[in-house]
Amino acid sequence: MKEKELEKVIGYSFENAKYLQIALSHTSYVNEVKKGAVSNERQEFLGDAVLSIVVSDYLFKHYSHLPEGELTKLRASLVCEKSLCEFAHMIGLGQYLYLGRGEELMGGRERPSILADAFEALIAAIYLDGGMEHAKRFILGFVKKQVEKEKKVFFKDYKTTLQEIIQQNKEEQLSYVLVQESGPDHDKHFVVEVHLNSNVIGKGEGRSKKDAEQMAAKEALELMGE
Amino acid sequence: MKEKELEKVIGYSFENAKYLQIALSHTSYVNEVKKGAVSNERQEFLGDAVLSIVVSDYLFKHYSHLPEGELTKLRASLVCEKSLCEFAHMIGLGQYLYLGRGEELMGGRERPSILADAFEALIAAIYLDGGMEHAKRFILGFVKKQVEKEKKVFFKDYKTTLQEIIQQNKEEQLSYVLVQESGPDHDKHFVVEVHLNSNVIGKGEGRSKKDAEQMAAKEALELMGE
Repeated sequence: MKEKELEKVIGYSFENAKYLQIALSHTSYVNEVKKGAVSNERQEFLGDAVLSIVVSDYLFKHYSHLPEGELTKLRASLVCEKSLCEFAHMIGLGQYLYLGRGEELMGGRERPSILADAFEALIAAIYLDGGMEHAKRFILGFVKKQVEKEKKVFFKDYKTTLQEIIQQNKEEQLSYVLVQESGPDHDKHFVVEVHLNSNVIGKGEGRSKKDAEQMAAKEALELMGE
Repeated sequence: MKEKELEKVIGYSFENAKYLQIALSHTSYVNEVKKGAVSNERQEFLGDAVLSIVVSDYLFKHYSHLPEGELTKLRASLVCEKSLCEFAHMIGLGQYLYLGRGEELMGGRERPSILADAFEALIAAIYLDGGMEHAKRFILGFVKKQVEKEKKVFFKDYKTTLQEIIQQNKEEQLSYVLVQESGPDHDKHFVVEVHLNSNVIGKGEGRSKKDAEQMAAKEALELMGE
């Protein structure tokens, strides 16, 4: 029994096997092979929202220093087709899918959109069968590792990186100079230069001084080929 | 105390008033008036996902006959800025907001985006303070009514409507004729005509016969000026 094997792989046993079967049934299978059966599309709709709340809750509580914009970017990188497809590959989800003949012949088992959708439908299956806590445990197993990977991209602090490079030479002095501050109180605009000794090596703009400094450091790093 | 009044309006008393205060604090307030305080942006990020799972779960379970595409459209209509802004108005959320001076002068209390964001942040406040069940109760209070309104648009069944009009005259006979079926099994395309006695009064296309029939009925209704 294919499903029993998958249950072992994901570490969750279904009370009601129907949910798992639906999660694995691509619409091409229902249209061609088993008319009248239920495809995974509706569960995918639900699984998408379950995934989003679990990831959002996790990021909100574990990255309390990150502003909303960064949280949103990080969430988007975790719930995108690419990530979901990777998660699906980790459990070999493709081999358990029910596909129509055409889809099978055209390599549907490896198609990223089919795998990502089925993964979301599988999330909904666990949610419907065992509730939010089980769905959460399942999702976080994948998400925590992925966050560690994404962190390197998202948590980059340009000022720290620049500082680390510059301080290798003790005589070099880095400083940030605010060269412009404009706009009404509720919509400020800042321009900052980063100076190496007395030379401007980068310039940045932002809605806060901190943002502008980060952008200046980023430009400096780019100019230095980092 | 503004917050106590709002608690009565929404029917939820906070254990930790901090969450409510954050939900009401627009970024302009934090930037200008109370530097170092926390704005509602991060809670808005979280509230968005809480809203989505509550609405998705409700639609999934209460509209089991609706296909995924319709569920997605319906969800989008419920969680859009327009709906959220209406919900915010129902509890007079604008008057409880903390805004910066500029925002206040420019009518920020009535601005749809500010109201919608604050409403999402308020959802997160209840979720963080009281858990998912309380957030759910709060959200469904608004959503159930809204679904009833949206239903009229989304649940329209063109075939039924056409049938009801035609059967006012007992001699008229309505029939649906499949005139084309093409494409490979996994990507079928259907064309259906709707006949009134022997006259074609509408033609429709779709990925299933049922969809094509609905579209044919829709065209007939349009031609009849309905």
